[in-house]
Amino acid sequence: MKTSFESDYNNGAHPEVICHLLETNGKQSQSYGFDEWSEQARQKIRTACQCPDADIFFLVGGTQANATVIDGMLLSYEGVIAVQTGHINVHESGAVEASGHKVITLPSHGGKMAADDLEAWLKAFHADPTLEHMVIPGMVYITFPTELGSVYSAKEIEAILAVCRRYELKLFIDGARLGYGLASSECDFDLPWLAQHCDVFYIGGTKVGALCGEAVVFPRRNAPRHFMNIVKRHGALLAKSRLAGVQFDALFTNGLYFSIAKHAIDKAMQMRQIFADAGIPLRDSSTNQQFVELTDAQMKHILEDVLFETWEPLDDHRTLCRFVTSWATTDRDLKALKEALKAFR
Amino acid sequence: MKTSFESDYNNGAHPEVICHLLETNGKQSQSYGFDEWSEQARQKIRTACQCPDADIFFLVGGTQANATVIDGMLLSYEGVIAVQTGHINVHESGAVEASGHKVITLPSHGGKMAADDLEAWLKAFHADPTLEHMVIPGMVYITFPTELGSVYSAKEIEAILAVCRRYELKLFIDGARLGYGLASSECDFDLPWLAQHCDVFYIGGTKVGALCGEAVVFPRRNAPRHFMNIVKRHGALLAKSRLAGVQFDALFTNGLYFSIAKHAIDKAMQMRQIFADAGIPLRDSSTNQQFVELTDAQMKHILEDVLFETWEPLDDHRTLCRFVTSWATTDRDLKALKEALKAFR
Amino acid sequence: MKTSFESDYNNGAHPEVICHLLETNGKQSQSYGFDEWSEQARQKIRTACQCPDADIFFLVGGTQANATVIDGMLLSYEGVIAVQTGHINVHESGAVEASGHKVITLPSHGGKMAADDLEAWLKAFHADPTLEHMVIPGMVYITFPTELGSVYSAKEIEAILAVCRRYELKLFIDGARLGYGLASSECDFDLPWLAQHCDVFYIGGTKVGALCGEAVVFPRRNAPRHFMNIVKRHGALLAKSRLAGVQFDALFTNGLYFSIAKHAIDKAMQMRQIFADAGIPLRDSSTNQQFVELTDAQMKHILEDVLFETWEPLDDHRTLCRFVTSWATTDRDLKALKEALKAFR
Amino acid sequence: MKTSFESDYNNGAHPEVICHLLETNGKQSQSYGFDEWSEQARQKIRTACQCPDADIFFLVGGTQANATVIDGMLLSYEGVIAVQTGHINVHESGAVEASGHKVITLPSHGGKMAADDLEAWLKAFHADPTLEHMVIPGMVYITFPTELGSVYSAKEIEAILAVCRRYELKLFIDGARLGYGLASSECDFDLPWLAQHCDVFYIGGTKVGALCGEAVVFPRRNAPRHFMNIVKRHGALLAKSRLAGVQFDALFTNGLYFSIAKHAIDKAMQMRQIFADAGIPLRDSSTNQQFVELTDAQMKHILEDVLFETWEPLDDHRTLCRFVTSWATTDRDLKALKEALKAFR
Repeated sequence: MKTSFESDYNNGAHPEVICHLLETNGKQSQSYGFDEWSEQARQKIRTACQCPDADIFFLVGGTQANATVIDGMLLSYEGVIAVQTGHINVHESGAVEASGHKVITLPSHGGKMAADDLEAWLKAFHADPTLEHMVIPGMVYITFPTELGSVYSAKEIEAILAVCRRYELKLFIDGARLGYGLASSECDFDLPWLAQHCDVFYIGGTKVGALCGEAVVFPRRNAPRHFMNIVKRHGALLAKSRLAGVQFDALFTNGLYFSIAKHAIDKAMQMRQIFADAGIPLRDSSTNQQFVELTDAQMKHILEDVLFETWEPLDDHRTLCRFVTSWATTDRDLKALKEALKAFR
Repeated sequence: MKTSFESDYNNGAHPEVICHLLETNGKQSQSYGFDEWSEQARQKIRTACQCPDADIFFLVGGTQANATVIDGMLLSYEGVIAVQTGHINVHESGAVEASGHKVITLPSHGGKMAADDLEAWLKAFHADPTLEHMVIPGMVYITFPTELGSVYSAKEIEAILAVCRRYELKLFIDGARLGYGLASSECDFDLPWLAQHCDVFYIGGTKVGALCGEAVVFPRRNAPRHFMNIVKRHGALLAKSRLAGVQFDALFTNGLYFSIAKHAIDKAMQMRQIFADAGIPLRDSSTNQQFVELTDAQMKHILEDVLFETWEPLDDHRTLCRFVTSWATTDRDLKALKEALKAFR
Repeated sequence: MKTSFESDYNNGAHPEVICHLLETNGKQSQSYGFDEWSEQARQKIRTACQCPDADIFFLVGGTQANATVIDGMLLSYEGVIAVQTGHINVHESGAVEASGHKVITLPSHGGKMAADDLEAWLKAFHADPTLEHMVIPGMVYITFPTELGSVYSAKEIEAILAVCRRYELKLFIDGARLGYGLASSECDFDLPWLAQHCDVFYIGGTKVGALCGEAVVFPRRNAPRHFMNIVKRHGALLAKSRLAGVQFDALFTNGLYFSIAKHAIDKAMQMRQIFADAGIPLRDSSTNQQFVELTDAQMKHILEDVLFETWEPLDDHRTLCRFVTSWATTDRDLKALKEALKAFR
Repeated sequence: MKTSFESDYNNGAHPEVICHLLETNGKQSQSYGFDEWSEQARQKIRTACQCPDADIFFLVGGTQANATVIDGMLLSYEGVIAVQTGHINVHESGAVEASGHKVITLPSHGGKMAADDLEAWLKAFHADPTLEHMVIPGMVYITFPTELGSVYSAKEIEAILAVCRRYELKLFIDGARLGYGLASSECDFDLPWLAQHCDVFYIGGTKVGALCGEAVVFPRRNAPRHFMNIVKRHGALLAKSRLAGVQFDALFTNGLYFSIAKHAIDKAMQMRQIFADAGIPLRDSSTNQQFVELTDAQMKHILEDVLFETWEPLDDHRTLCRFVTSWATTDRDLKALKEALKAFR
């Protein structure tokens, strides 16, 4: 079987997660979010975030989390501001528009939003005499880390948050790969800091060791009223909520969530070295997603032994390709990659 | 710990389901529905339904399945016809209306729709000169078994389907508890027959032994075009689709799905006898949900040892209560119930 | 040409309305609601309502007014409570559901909602342990006068409003035919009283002398924030807003709105006498819509000279029919009806 | 009173339009689109378009026309492609997203879409392996003339249509100012040609001499099934449909629609000369909207006598400003402008 770096969701759950599902399986529990493991997991996440009052909801996946949070926090006529490359603008099949909200786009700087762009746009918006004919912005959406593997600095997030406060916009951080961002060597803040610098965020489980599940966190008991109904209305409420609760209980026991992320980052950095050694151009990324420029010949050769995703064509002969690590990446996987690259050194 | 008959979703997964999750966990797979177990499960379901051409999609839960199928098969301005007590009318937090579709209601006959009511309504609708000001019906939604534990006969479904064909309406059967309906002694048809008598249905996993998951079946390769996008747009597409695939693979191996259902029905019938012996009035139900009429004093007494759900007040002193069996119901559970009822004989 | 009692919207505008359109046509004005006549009309309506602080918006038609007000005042997951026969439940082609809101129905008492029904429903709703799976009610919608020509008494509205206040629901009064309700001899309140006994209502223009236009009134400066954007988003903002403004300016000059209504009511009462004299069964109605029971033979005979609408079949031989008066109904029209009924006396 | 070039909707209706409203006011008619003038107007428009089979609907305004046509022709999960500056992307308050459809944007070339951009985007879209996670394009939306006053050539529209056919996309032409585009000296096709080169378009009335109203034309009897219900659901169906019908009847009698447009274009060209004579930089535009670059001092000076709209800031001292002509623009208006510009020569 070929080694795969295609994604961080083509393996099963981390062993400790799957074992916890097994060991708790025999017990009866309440449903719809009221099971004991969900409650336990919520407590552990509150502790990890240093947010004793946080409202926490476990949703099944990322699209749901994005669509539900955005719809839940916006008024019907409000839109959400994101960068062009933002997941909600590109890869959610219109789930945000499905509940009536426009995604307003700003330029992407390597996947990141610039506070200056945001402020400039808002200034122009409020100066526009036709404001009554436009979509009112209600929220700013950023991803941490971004879809391109980049991470915001504390200063950059502070700047965005300051603009949000000035213009009364909510700040939502999509943390589908949150662990990998926090584990990046470039990241100059921690989870509690992040929780203090936004209105809502989620802790991605699916891509960080769980089978499914995202923990939506409203850090200051600031969940919208009737948020459970909003979740249900979006089809995002599990009858057997234990499924998500048990997994997050495992992920937030003994720092598993963070050690999974650290492992993946370590492997990603080793992978960078392997590519560099082979003379293959790499984009900057300190997280678990690595983007390299491959010629057609290189792609063909590597694919004989190692799987990865093509990201976008660069020109007629070269393609940007994505290699992703996860909890499941082993030294053997990296060795297979090294082997496959031998020819190019 | 008290014995609970509160629901068929307050236990974990059936042991064979959880074990299959464990034993497959180490393998890598494709994502978003293309994993090998999903493909295997689809094949097994096609065989079980005798529908070699069926389009099959695994969604996470019932609300999603209902909202996604209805939205996917209706045009934007069409509505769906259901009985007053239908799940989509009562307990989906407006998930159907969320995508713009009106739920048009007919009277409920013990949870069931009458073909005559349907035809009469459609006749009146088409005779109405103000048709251009009304919601155009596009689909009929029924549940099998119903929310009240009743089951349609083959003749009743045939009659409804005939009306649907006459008026060009799609027929959608919500099978959140499908197994229990098919296992009922009252049921005079099987899964292949059902698959031939509707346009789409789903095989409920969550309430029949899985941790989560519903298998939406379009029996004759008749899924709407781009249905994957529709599923994604509804937040119903699992990145690690193996989670659903593996579970359905287990459920449709060696007839597990049907034996789980049979077990629960056997226990439910034993439960009926226990209530009857205690002189407690029982509603008709040949499925795994049993509805009994309890006085306040009875409720209080039973709740000391056995948990259940209150359904609706009958008068100032009596309440309709629901007792549910599942794969996990044991003889010991029934014994505990018998004990608790001893006082009333 | 046959005399028509088919509706109150099959004539042009009242002469004073059309003349005001003509006499103002040559003047330039601001657009999108800021023209001078709209401002004047708003002032006149504020005076007529004794609501100096009212927010007033002119929308083009009734469906728009209903859909826009309901969507504008509800949160995305909230529903609106109406009686079964309520216009938004029956004849808006799903315009309310189109923006995601469920219409929750209560029984109709001759077109009216009973405060007791409302309270009982709300009590049951809040006692329901599955509240998180249901649509949260946010608003009560009633029509004045109702679709069946009936009018609420002050006491009945007070009772409904009291329930709304107790359960924090908004009260919205659809006044598509408001003038006719206020002019009814049964009506025991006036426009200022009505304005004080709801959260929002609209003054129907289309059916009371205008070519188009409904004046939505938020009596206590309580329009939702950014309501103009909500109106625009619903396609309900006229570029040449003068069209609505000029018409309402005419309607609220010298009490024209009220005299149009009075005229129609006078004619309707004379019509009742004509039917009674002919021995034709009449439903109770003190407004401009009259409902009579006709046999097939009677219908056929009358239709030779006089047009009307069939409402609903009563049995195999008899039909409930609607005869409507308006500003344009003349003594000659009534005479024609009398002639047509001669045969039945 | 100051001379205003602010817009083509700050005057009343063209005298022949308002007179036709007056002269027809006394007659009774059917409602909801079935009045005799609507039928007459439809026939005249069919003749003008040389489309004997066209389905034609009169809607009240442009936002409604855009939102209703797009929602009516797209499946729920489909999006519409427009240029960044397209009206539906900028100035509809999210009316398109309100019914769940994403506006997918391409670069604007002076307000126009380039067929090459469109094809390149579609090629990339269909090559993307993540297509199932994206919004499926269903329609191309262009404006004729554009929001910036530019007009497509026949060749440009043919090229766009060819791409649409190749990729099975519908082509919708927003003709809010259609008359002005056809009357432009740059325009190398006529109305029948346009009708043959799209799937749906509308003939703008509001900005070309009516008080309100847009005529949506499906040239080949290709209106979506139940389009009346779709119109009603969007709140776009007038009870007194004569209001729109009578106006379009007047506009399409004796070529009034075209002579109004020609008049406005003539005046716009004279206006260009006046600006040119004053040495004020003008953007290219052969239609009734003219865009000029004014310094702050110039703006201040001109505004003393002549009104116009600011469009967008160019730098700290200069602003792009819009001057618009219409049926109502007179030689005296132009003289006033000339006077105001005297100082700058």
